Amino acid sequence: MNTRFTLSVDAMGGDAAPKMVVEGVALAAEKYPGVNFLLCGDENLIAPLVRDNPGLADRVRIRHTLEVVGAADKPSTALRSGRNTSMRLSINAVAEGEAAGVVSAGNTGALMAMAMFVLKTLNGIDRPAIAGVFPTLRGKCVMLDLGANVESDADNLVQFAVMGEVFARRVLGVESPSVGLLNVGVEELKGHNDVKQAAATLQKSHLPIRFHGFVEGDGIAAGTVDVVVTDGFTGNIVLKSIEGTAKMFVRFLKEALTASLPAKLGSLLARLALNRFRERIDPRCYNGAMFLGLNGVCVKSHGGTDAFGFANAVNVACELIADRLNEGIKEDLADLAAHALPMTEAGIRS
Amino acid sequence: MNTRFTLSVDAMGGDAAPKMVVEGVALAAEKYPGVNFLLCGDENLIAPLVRDNPGLADRVRIRHTLEVVGAADKPSTALRSGRNTSMRLSINAVAEGEAAGVVSAGNTGALMAMAMFVLKTLNGIDRPAIAGVFPTLRGKCVMLDLGANVESDADNLVQFAVMGEVFARRVLGVESPSVGLLNVGVEELKGHNDVKQAAATLQKSHLPIRFHGFVEGDGIAAGTVDVVVTDGFTGNIVLKSIEGTAKMFVRFLKEALTASLPAKLGSLLARLALNRFRERIDPRCYNGAMFLGLNGVCVKSHGGTDAFGFANAVNVACELIADRLNEGIKEDLADLAAHALPMTEAGIRS
Repeated sequence: MNTRFTLSVDAMGGDAAPKMVVEGVALAAEKYPGVNFLLCGDENLIAPLVRDNPGLADRVRIRHTLEVVGAADKPSTALRSGRNTSMRLSINAVAEGEAAGVVSAGNTGALMAMAMFVLKTLNGIDRPAIAGVFPTLRGKCVMLDLGANVESDADNLVQFAVMGEVFARRVLGVESPSVGLLNVGVEELKGHNDVKQAAATLQKSHLPIRFHGFVEGDGIAAGTVDVVVTDGFTGNIVLKSIEGTAKMFVRFLKEALTASLPAKLGSLLARLALNRFRERIDPRCYNGAMFLGLNGVCVKSHGGTDAFGFANAVNVACELIADRLNEGIKEDLADLAAHALPMTEAGIRS
Repeated sequence: MNTRFTLSVDAMGGDAAPKMVVEGVALAAEKYPGVNFLLCGDENLIAPLVRDNPGLADRVRIRHTLEVVGAADKPSTALRSGRNTSMRLSINAVAEGEAAGVVSAGNTGALMAMAMFVLKTLNGIDRPAIAGVFPTLRGKCVMLDLGANVESDADNLVQFAVMGEVFARRVLGVESPSVGLLNVGVEELKGHNDVKQAAATLQKSHLPIRFHGFVEGDGIAAGTVDVVVTDGFTGNIVLKSIEGTAKMFVRFLKEALTASLPAKLGSLLARLALNRFRERIDPRCYNGAMFLGLNGVCVKSHGGTDAFGFANAVNVACELIADRLNEGIKEDLADLAAHALPMTEAGIRS
């Protein structure tokens, strides 16, 4: 990829920041030679780390600040009194056109609140959503909302469907992505009013969306659809339940394969295969949750990740910018607004 | 266990019924020599199967009917016109005191509707809940509601907490179970109003419940608490997401271990260890979802399970009866009602 732009990075967000951030940026920088980085945070800590990574020095600028958003800070507090934090400065750079997007491993709620306040939502989108990519038996799927909102009504769900569809098409490269609404059953009469109304809108509307209908929880890993749409409460809990299950599995497997001599010898023989298995489910490879629906690319990395994981979040941001995701969403929303559908019915306000 | 009672079984529910049902009953019967079985369904199909399982004949009675509830039948239809179905007759046996509990692998919605109509909810419980046992890094936990209800308010959640606590104490054998509310964060201000209100009630009340506070999705597999309380929409989707993730993992692992000669040899050597791993996460060992809050024990088996899985659902019903779960719930509810708390505040109506 030869696209040239600057990516803004909150160098102080995350448990092992700024070290893992700078090292992650260095890893990602090799992959994207056309990208420069603006690192926001404590120059005294960041500058030596940049010097330790040859090749990074001439592609990095540092915006110094000593203020940081704490992991336990309330979003409202961060918004009110965090105007000079590394997180805020890194977002400001996007609003001011200095950077094409921002990555942070800091406090999720604060990042969402600041990004919404500074970047504003796209025209036609009432609420942004957090989207993530998941491994499935058939490849990958994108799920949203993973927790930007605590409650989502039918209109929100329809807007999430539009954004997720554009994402699957532009970033995952699926030609005609199928979209499903997460529910407690696949039959039409199942679920609460918001999912039923959203399904009705997606079904009867002339949106350029291939609506599959409802999918159940096991449809995520089965790869039943390319885009899984749900409210932020359910999505966040499902995301973390899957992560927890994955961790438990890996631990159980490790315990089994170290419990006896034959098991140890066997796993030594199958070492390469087991490594491939681990890579396939490595959560670091799926690190980088995207805030969709904002005027600007904003990616949230897991706070507890390492340099490899953070590099993946940087990769995600670079792909979103290169694939012009926001332009795609804007075009689709304009397309929808041009349809004869009443706006409230389509869940889209222009 | 030497307890003597009769268990009622819907012999026609489930994909492979009645064969897998009768074979599952035969497996469970060996474990519980004091239990007799009432099998409801088509005698012409059931009788030969019973004869094929020696030792079962003198412990089984058959209640003949040709009518069955279809897998796709609406609950309301099943309730209205299914009075002579194998499912309904098996529930009736509990209401009439002929059986101490019932097991079915049939249509979940129909089973819940019929069980609620026939058995009624316990005094002090507004809505029953479906509970299930999950493997965790620290042992087991129970989660509810897994889908009896589409929406649950704060009072419902508090009642689920009471029922789950009694279950963990009496059936899982935890002396003083910790109870957590599933949420999008652990901080007090996180989540929607219903979880916040339920948490406030559980926190300030003098209920004999060790309330942990909020847990996130990864707390389920981590075993953060013994009882995970959530609404039926979230619970059902989380349950199935975990099942789907488990299936994907097993498939990925199998693919990795059969992809090369060293991998195949290694997995042959580690065969016993891998089998132990598989057993530890075998969904059949966790088959048997309990309908809690009814005047009678009612257990739902997965429709797609086999004889081994169905036997586990029968085991679950036998344990609930032997451990006198419902008596425990009734005592705790009476205990709560005797507390000085305003009933609406405790979420308990007497």
